[in-house]
Amino acid sequence: MNNLPDISKDFALWYQEVIFQAELVDSSPVRGTMIIRPYGYALWEQIVDVLDDKIKKTGHKNASFPLFIPESFLKKEAKHVEGFAPELAIVTHAGGKKLEEPLVVRPTSETIIHYMFARWIKSWRDLPLKINQWANVVRWELRPRAFLRTTEFFWQEGHTAHETLEQAQEEVFMMLHEYKDLAENYLAIPVITGQKTETERFPGAIETHTFEAFMQDGKALQMGTSHLLSQSFAHAFEMQFQNRDGVLAYPFLTSWGTTTRLVGALVMVHGDQKGLVMPPKVAPIQVVILLILLKNKDNTAVIEAGYALAADLKKQGFRVELDQDMHKSAGARFFYWEIRGVPIRIEIGPRDLEKQEVKVVDRIGLCAESVNVSSVTQKVAQLLELIQKTLFERAQERNEHMWHKEEKLVNFGPILEKNNGIYQTGWCGSADCEQKLKEFKAFTRCLLEEKTFDVCFNCDKPSDRDVVVAKSY
Amino acid sequence: MNNLPDISKDFALWYQEVIFQAELVDSSPVRGTMIIRPYGYALWEQIVDVLDDKIKKTGHKNASFPLFIPESFLKKEAKHVEGFAPELAIVTHAGGKKLEEPLVVRPTSETIIHYMFARWIKSWRDLPLKINQWANVVRWELRPRAFLRTTEFFWQEGHTAHETLEQAQEEVFMMLHEYKDLAENYLAIPVITGQKTETERFPGAIETHTFEAFMQDGKALQMGTSHLLSQSFAHAFEMQFQNRDGVLAYPFLTSWGTTTRLVGALVMVHGDQKGLVMPPKVAPIQVVILLILLKNKDNTAVIEAGYALAADLKKQGFRVELDQDMHKSAGARFFYWEIRGVPIRIEIGPRDLEKQEVKVVDRIGLCAESVNVSSVTQKVAQLLELIQKTLFERAQERNEHMWHKEEKLVNFGPILEKNNGIYQTGWCGSADCEQKLKEFKAFTRCLLEEKTFDVCFNCDKPSDRDVVVAKSY
Repeated sequence: MNNLPDISKDFALWYQEVIFQAELVDSSPVRGTMIIRPYGYALWEQIVDVLDDKIKKTGHKNASFPLFIPESFLKKEAKHVEGFAPELAIVTHAGGKKLEEPLVVRPTSETIIHYMFARWIKSWRDLPLKINQWANVVRWELRPRAFLRTTEFFWQEGHTAHETLEQAQEEVFMMLHEYKDLAENYLAIPVITGQKTETERFPGAIETHTFEAFMQDGKALQMGTSHLLSQSFAHAFEMQFQNRDGVLAYPFLTSWGTTTRLVGALVMVHGDQKGLVMPPKVAPIQVVILLILLKNKDNTAVIEAGYALAADLKKQGFRVELDQDMHKSAGARFFYWEIRGVPIRIEIGPRDLEKQEVKVVDRIGLCAESVNVSSVTQKVAQLLELIQKTLFERAQERNEHMWHKEEKLVNFGPILEKNNGIYQTGWCGSADCEQKLKEFKAFTRCLLEEKTFDVCFNCDKPSDRDVVVAKSY
Repeated sequence: MNNLPDISKDFALWYQEVIFQAELVDSSPVRGTMIIRPYGYALWEQIVDVLDDKIKKTGHKNASFPLFIPESFLKKEAKHVEGFAPELAIVTHAGGKKLEEPLVVRPTSETIIHYMFARWIKSWRDLPLKINQWANVVRWELRPRAFLRTTEFFWQEGHTAHETLEQAQEEVFMMLHEYKDLAENYLAIPVITGQKTETERFPGAIETHTFEAFMQDGKALQMGTSHLLSQSFAHAFEMQFQNRDGVLAYPFLTSWGTTTRLVGALVMVHGDQKGLVMPPKVAPIQVVILLILLKNKDNTAVIEAGYALAADLKKQGFRVELDQDMHKSAGARFFYWEIRGVPIRIEIGPRDLEKQEVKVVDRIGLCAESVNVSSVTQKVAQLLELIQKTLFERAQERNEHMWHKEEKLVNFGPILEKNNGIYQTGWCGSADCEQKLKEFKAFTRCLLEEKTFDVCFNCDKPSDRDVVVAKSY
């Protein structure tokens, strides 16, 4: 029925096609950027709603800082500029003139936000300062892929300042926990959390914590990060406050962010040969009501039943679409909603309706049954919950299957390179050994708290903590 | 108590100071841009919520298009590029290299959206296509003023395509009506709507309709516009569809937008010598509960009553803040909430509480009375409604006072130049006569449907419709 590439044979091609055919995105005439179409944007809006609520409930306030940052600001923190320089887009001319100082289109906003923090933080009473920004950022991508790596993308970036290192640490973990909750309990994507190695750290952070998910093809995706920043940012921007002892001190900073990449993750974790599969909690459309209308017949009863049911479901807070297309075949209509991953399809036809019944079918094969009109809303509520739970469990089970514990890279490296998969192993902590992973196209994803292995995957030096190794997006 | 400049003597300075002292914005290190602080951003979020809901309910869908537009796109519509060229910011370098084609940071998105429309619109069945985008745009401003004219600002831009001119016209007026409703019934700002003259038209439109408000100083502010676009955009982007007769045709396009400028309007219409005045429907904080706490005393009862009342009001859907600051004087706390324009202040102190009473005071002097604890929520609901209504009526009354009908520019020009004010007059329709207004620093704001005057304000030619003339922001 659909012409999606075989998901088990060419996952990358399947991804590219499914997001295009399901109208999440369209290709853009501007290299590396994307056109997010209404269905894709509605999904992003659902995710934003959940996360914005979490951000506010944990005491942060939204604000907005300029898109353009003076080049000199970025240069104030040495590692920061070094990390971002190759990816910058630069405005050199404006208002018909050459600018005296070029402006960088923000790749992230630490520098400009810290400049303002330095003006706002004078006393310990001004702390903690907890700001969030929803924004577009630009990082020039050499190998762009819709949602996963695009030159322009959307994100939120949280920026906070605290009196003590402990409070900053607490903030870093609190937001990591909120992200994990968003991923697992809304997107139905099981994730692991852990600290990044020094190589993979955010430029200017002393600790970067990540939440990572695993796609169906056995590759890892960094879903977002929460950073404990070094005090060098506070020093660079002369951010000082009078502490409780009346002494001038530098605050401890954090930043954390997640992006439109979450949409890509959702597609790659839940999708199947028939198309997208939307987790009910963030599905732009949770239920489609499909009216079976007959040409040259009186369809009044079916249409009325459709509108009544739609109104009923909407009143219960469900997101519902009514499909009364008479031009397409039933098959084409099924396909249309299937590839879009709408969790539940309700078919209303004249024959069923005579028996006061409608047909309820879900997107992942849990249910295809006739249900009495009087109990449809109850059925929908139960089924949406079941789909949400099943999607999470299905992904979790798959992760378990692709998760391996192996001692030596020389043994698991070639298999990882060929078949992908997630490898838990030991590591001495040296960047040299970490570098060896690249020979198999793999990277460290994060450190774990566990210790299963006594020695490094590469050398014979001892390992303190296990590390997770995988290919990545 | 506060040190705001005298609103009646130097309105411009008062504006600049009040938005800064009330912490709506801070000045930005990047010329022409603004830092929107949490209180200002929360106000913008309230406005966005209302408008986004209206946009969706009228059948539009949100989507997202790139920040960067190839320079060649802008050049496709001659008047469009001519209008925007002087204001463009241009990215010439990215990813460490000089770009082959410079990218323009979008000043508006007609060109890139029409490029996509041409791909999406193939048949009359694809119409109407009704898209909206919430975005940041950049127009290089020579005389920037926070919220009113900034190099980067936020807005929504609606873009639609229709089968017939009549349908496009209908869309233009529908959205103008939604804007008027937003202004009058949420922001409590009375507006006039009308068509712009050719001189003031959007570059590339055949009709631009505006909604205009009048500030306390007697100047006009264009709040937003709704455009009927010429078909030249459809031609430029080869946007053709098969119509109901099977013939290839060009669709009829509209675009409409409003911006963060609405925040500036709200400040300039409702503010007073004590600071901002927030219309309750969009106030980020509708009620502040101020606890009168005594040092070295048991404040438990007051604190408990404060929390209980806050919870109660929140449950009713009100936006509430609890102020239990013990460091500042009562006067300083009153001042803090007053300059922020919070509509209602409820004071809870130990003495009143013994009588089961709290003190309810509103921001615009309608009420200052003791209210029994049991009836506070009811009082709050009534009072918020009354404040909303009073603000609108107050502004409407002021507009009537500053509205004049005058026949000849030679008579009213000098008075307008000196005292500002709104002038309804006759006009022959020629750009030459319109040009004369500049001698008095005035501009046409919009055409009216009425005809009061038989001749032009400048020449002796006949006038078809009245025109509104004022200085403007």
